[in-house]
Amino acid sequence: MINQDNGISLNTLQEAVEEELMKVVSVVREDGTEELHHMLAYHMGWEGERAGPEARGKRIRPILVLLASLAAGGDWEHALPAAAAVELVHNFSLIHDDIQDNSHLRRGRPTVWVKWGIPQAINAGDVLLNLAFMAITRLEETASPSIALHAHSILQTTCLKLTKGQYLDLSYQSRSDLSPQDYWPMVSGKTAALLAACTELGALVAGANPFLCDLYRQFGNHLGLAFQAQDDLLGIWGNSAFLGKSTESDLAEGKKSLPVLYGLSLNGPFARRWRSGPIHLEEVPEMAAQLDSEGARQYTQEQVARSTSLALQALEDAHPTSVGKKLLSDLATALLYRQG
Amino acid sequence: MINQDNGISLNTLQEAVEEELMKVVSVVREDGTEELHHMLAYHMGWEGERAGPEARGKRIRPILVLLASLAAGGDWEHALPAAAAVELVHNFSLIHDDIQDNSHLRRGRPTVWVKWGIPQAINAGDVLLNLAFMAITRLEETASPSIALHAHSILQTTCLKLTKGQYLDLSYQSRSDLSPQDYWPMVSGKTAALLAACTELGALVAGANPFLCDLYRQFGNHLGLAFQAQDDLLGIWGNSAFLGKSTESDLAEGKKSLPVLYGLSLNGPFARRWRSGPIHLEEVPEMAAQLDSEGARQYTQEQVARSTSLALQALEDAHPTSVGKKLLSDLATALLYRQG
Repeated sequence: MINQDNGISLNTLQEAVEEELMKVVSVVREDGTEELHHMLAYHMGWEGERAGPEARGKRIRPILVLLASLAAGGDWEHALPAAAAVELVHNFSLIHDDIQDNSHLRRGRPTVWVKWGIPQAINAGDVLLNLAFMAITRLEETASPSIALHAHSILQTTCLKLTKGQYLDLSYQSRSDLSPQDYWPMVSGKTAALLAACTELGALVAGANPFLCDLYRQFGNHLGLAFQAQDDLLGIWGNSAFLGKSTESDLAEGKKSLPVLYGLSLNGPFARRWRSGPIHLEEVPEMAAQLDSEGARQYTQEQVARSTSLALQALEDAHPTSVGKKLLSDLATALLYRQG
Repeated sequence: MINQDNGISLNTLQEAVEEELMKVVSVVREDGTEELHHMLAYHMGWEGERAGPEARGKRIRPILVLLASLAAGGDWEHALPAAAAVELVHNFSLIHDDIQDNSHLRRGRPTVWVKWGIPQAINAGDVLLNLAFMAITRLEETASPSIALHAHSILQTTCLKLTKGQYLDLSYQSRSDLSPQDYWPMVSGKTAALLAACTELGALVAGANPFLCDLYRQFGNHLGLAFQAQDDLLGIWGNSAFLGKSTESDLAEGKKSLPVLYGLSLNGPFARRWRSGPIHLEEVPEMAAQLDSEGARQYTQEQVARSTSLALQALEDAHPTSVGKKLLSDLATALLYRQG
């Protein structure tokens, strides 16, 4: 996603992240708990069928921590414990999400609950959350106690926001009275809070002052909001949802994404059809076109553009190092202008 | 359970714990997340049908933190954040346990998953775990950064042990090759680790040195092992399991408790009947008597006595304050010689 540049190779960062993650997760492997370790290693994409880069996901969050640290003038290696922590939090939430959403596939492979059952999958998610908190304690090896404590506090607050966002998301499934205003608190918690923590933690570990840390936090937060709105666009009008398989459309899944909430608030033809019952696969292209004609696509694009602009302004205000600014802008561009 | 004594009223401690818990949990209550707060307040026994002391459980763990702190010469009020944290960890595990074990009742009331569904219950447990980590950050208000960081680390290690123990417990359900040797790693994680954390945290916050903190940890650990073995005894030969309703017997539930693992390792009449299929309700009294006649009850009683003696020795070695020693011994006695 980012090319080798300015002497920093993205590959080096990714390999260092993977090594740090494996080190943290390895504490679970003991006599009698080998299978528990295998579950986690499977989910992380290291073991089992089709293990490898595809099964690991993009590791966007840990890379964001390291780049924010670089941008704030720090040594990226010192930020590795925080990078591992945010990726573990993300993966804890994925394991539980997959149970909650009854999802059978994750990154093209059977989900943990499908392979090991719901009770073990709930526990595997709990283990990853605990490992995230354990990962961040490794900051103490290079950071001052006050920075380490602050990092703990950021991680805790973030996880709490994540679970509040998840509560809203789950509770929205049974509600029909939602508007775009209900979208932002949910997405702030579910997506943006963790991205905000990534950039804030990176800056904190680099020794940035509270004012700068807050600008990095704002950068991550707006980036997260833009990222989620873009995800919602792709979920309806992206290559695989619109041109490809209708089964991959958020419309077929009944997901209350931003364009859908916008459409519902208009009470037009889209809203009337949505409220009359689940959308069938064969209706998906037509409904996507209808929603587009009612302005939902443009509205969502405007939200992406607005959040992106706020993100880049916050980054600008933080006066990042040139290498950090370049890499962070490249990452933001790659995330927001992706098509699939 | 403990009488007012030496100027310290157990009531005062319990009320202070409840207030601290409510304060921590209240951060969840915001515009739009009132129902999430209600779920947690329901589970904690503060709200909903039959809310009150019965629905709250005994709060043994937080009281243990405060008493250990007193015993180590500290101010119990300074230990309140740690007390709240361990009780929140305990309750996180209960919410997830109830889903994993398909339990419909907890403290006589419908479980969270029965009332709000599995997806929201998984998330409610996640919230409580996050609140536990948030609770412990409040230590920073009175303790030094190094003590606060150490407390974080104890909580993290403990939660990880808890989830490893839960993994073992879940994996044992489908195994028939278990012996009493398999019992201890599981119970060390599921029960003893958290009680060990209670007493260690209490001593740590009181400013005890590492040697003393370790003795308090040992006290809690042995107490936890004794407590669980006693629980297993009551689950088969306690008033409600044996004399009362067979439905409340661990034998009817097929639970692989210590007496059962002992019986299975003998390969006698009990083991043969157990392996031939689930025990019916009408067989429960006869099977309990059979297991007793094979020596499982005596074996388990010996384990309780052994762990209790090790616990009291560790406490003795820690030279506790007289008030702390008295209250901790009373609590241990009340826990271990309970009949129901």
